[in-house]
Amino acid sequence: MLAVKGYAAHDAQTDLAPWTFERRDLAPHDVQIEILYCGVCHTDWHLLRNEWGHSQFPLVPGHEMVGRVVAVGAHAQKFKVGDLAGGGVMVDSCRHCPDCENGQEQFCQVSPVQTYNSTGHDGLPTYGGYSNHNVVHEDFAHRISEKLELAAVAPLLCAGITTYSPLRRWQVGPGHKLAVVGLGGLGHMGVKFGVAFGADVTVLSTSEAKREDAKALGAHYFVVTKNAAEVAAVQGQFDFILDTVAADHDINLYLPLLRTNGTYINVGLPLAPLQVPSFSLANGNKTVTGSGAGGLTETQEMLDFCAEHNLVSDIELIDIKDIHSAFERMLKGDVCYRFVIDMATL
Amino acid sequence: MLAVKGYAAHDAQTDLAPWTFERRDLAPHDVQIEILYCGVCHTDWHLLRNEWGHSQFPLVPGHEMVGRVVAVGAHAQKFKVGDLAGGGVMVDSCRHCPDCENGQEQFCQVSPVQTYNSTGHDGLPTYGGYSNHNVVHEDFAHRISEKLELAAVAPLLCAGITTYSPLRRWQVGPGHKLAVVGLGGLGHMGVKFGVAFGADVTVLSTSEAKREDAKALGAHYFVVTKNAAEVAAVQGQFDFILDTVAADHDINLYLPLLRTNGTYINVGLPLAPLQVPSFSLANGNKTVTGSGAGGLTETQEMLDFCAEHNLVSDIELIDIKDIHSAFERMLKGDVCYRFVIDMATL
Repeated sequence: MLAVKGYAAHDAQTDLAPWTFERRDLAPHDVQIEILYCGVCHTDWHLLRNEWGHSQFPLVPGHEMVGRVVAVGAHAQKFKVGDLAGGGVMVDSCRHCPDCENGQEQFCQVSPVQTYNSTGHDGLPTYGGYSNHNVVHEDFAHRISEKLELAAVAPLLCAGITTYSPLRRWQVGPGHKLAVVGLGGLGHMGVKFGVAFGADVTVLSTSEAKREDAKALGAHYFVVTKNAAEVAAVQGQFDFILDTVAADHDINLYLPLLRTNGTYINVGLPLAPLQVPSFSLANGNKTVTGSGAGGLTETQEMLDFCAEHNLVSDIELIDIKDIHSAFERMLKGDVCYRFVIDMATL
Repeated sequence: MLAVKGYAAHDAQTDLAPWTFERRDLAPHDVQIEILYCGVCHTDWHLLRNEWGHSQFPLVPGHEMVGRVVAVGAHAQKFKVGDLAGGGVMVDSCRHCPDCENGQEQFCQVSPVQTYNSTGHDGLPTYGGYSNHNVVHEDFAHRISEKLELAAVAPLLCAGITTYSPLRRWQVGPGHKLAVVGLGGLGHMGVKFGVAFGADVTVLSTSEAKREDAKALGAHYFVVTKNAAEVAAVQGQFDFILDTVAADHDINLYLPLLRTNGTYINVGLPLAPLQVPSFSLANGNKTVTGSGAGGLTETQEMLDFCAEHNLVSDIELIDIKDIHSAFERMLKGDVCYRFVIDMATL
């Protein structure tokens, strides 16, 4: 077994603190990755505080990790020692169900394994990227370009793919008007991808303070949703709305902003059910949809796209000892736009 | 002006009764249709009782009408006297807005005119098909095949197009599993179209009593949704669910029956907002959508498809004096599957 250092919480009331645990020895197709950076996702906080009711403790969060391969299993072929590698929200799946066969391993119905708060096919609890090493089947590790700023790549593994995937699925591109709701970890990636895909991008935000930030990210327009006149001016304007807000909120502010045949995409995962009047859908053939992460092939495609277009997350690098003050700031939306832990500080 | 006989309600508390009113004289592009049959839609009842809050009285319902052209305007070219013609939910639109240009006149944002409970471009209130004559711009009258049973064609103009349009838009066809919720006017058309399009069709019903009826309509499978074991057996099975139920109901019974990337289509227009948990959408990239009627071209396409495939509604023909007992039975779901008024009884 491999001794690993990390930060864990031992129950939903306790803060993260240093903890030593074990990961499995390298299986023939495994790679061992020394984690150099790990992004801080809102999901980490939800699970630390057991807000979704299925947290397993001890809990080591983190599913946006990048690092270098330091060992490879006997039959591993995808990586050699020294290669950069990344890991996202999942570390295994059955590989044979219709979803796996269809490249949507994140929805595996047989034996999905999340990166943390799950149980691996090895029978061990999975622990996430707030740690110095991970061991994973090589298929669930992704190739990372040496061209990009490595710390800023980490958030691509969750915030990146979570916004890239639906924009690709719905073929958002030139000629489309895309609105992005919320300018946090997911939202700022949504803006960057929307712009990169050629869409006309508007940021919808409750805060006037984000106007310049939105433009700096490449957004073409900015609407303060507390300003009734600005909202009135964009009624029926958007082909797509990408809603990245995690807090409960009324989406009926946004549905009327869709044009006929328009699509609202929720990736923020608020807890309360969305309230969707059937008339709001029927009048204009409108659609409400969601999206969860992305499959293995699509995640690699996203990383390759980012390398090609020199596209990364905007981050604030933190020491791991400061993780809880980072959570506090994240919950207030006070981060531009993703905290990333420098694992050298572990 | 043209004197017309019909049935009207004069307020939301009063039943329909004979009423004489006027329609405009034929404009150059108008046709005058002698209405022979008119279907009874759930919308007629909603508006009679002002359940949607925007009813205008006197109100003459009816937007599923078929009949014969008895006069044509000086420049009308689409029809000649003696031709069959049908009319659906709308009688005019601006013709130049993006929706009209895109063949979705039903969503015209500038000057849409509903078949009844609306105001025409002539400035007159519109009155529906529970009457003996209508005057309409020829573009908003549809050609009807002489091959089909005419009375059974009437419901195609609303129940037909309302189910045909979303199944076409979402390209439901061979290899797809389609579930139809509710076996009323819309639902039975959904089954017929789904089967005609080559999908594998399951009827989901609260009532075991409809099992044989569903099969007679061509459905391949039947699930009683009050039977937990039957529902469990179809979890994650359907590519599409077409929900035609007008009463408020919890769609969270149905969302888990969608497979990954599956789509739930609401055409029943229940009053209460649909409760849609964001996790139910994200886990499997699922979609909730709605659909409203269809445009002019698509409605004619649907009628032509029905003529080609010998497809009509299953109807019960009634005398107009019995309209309120028909409404009572309709509200109990006691109709196979659409009441149609024989206008000769007016």
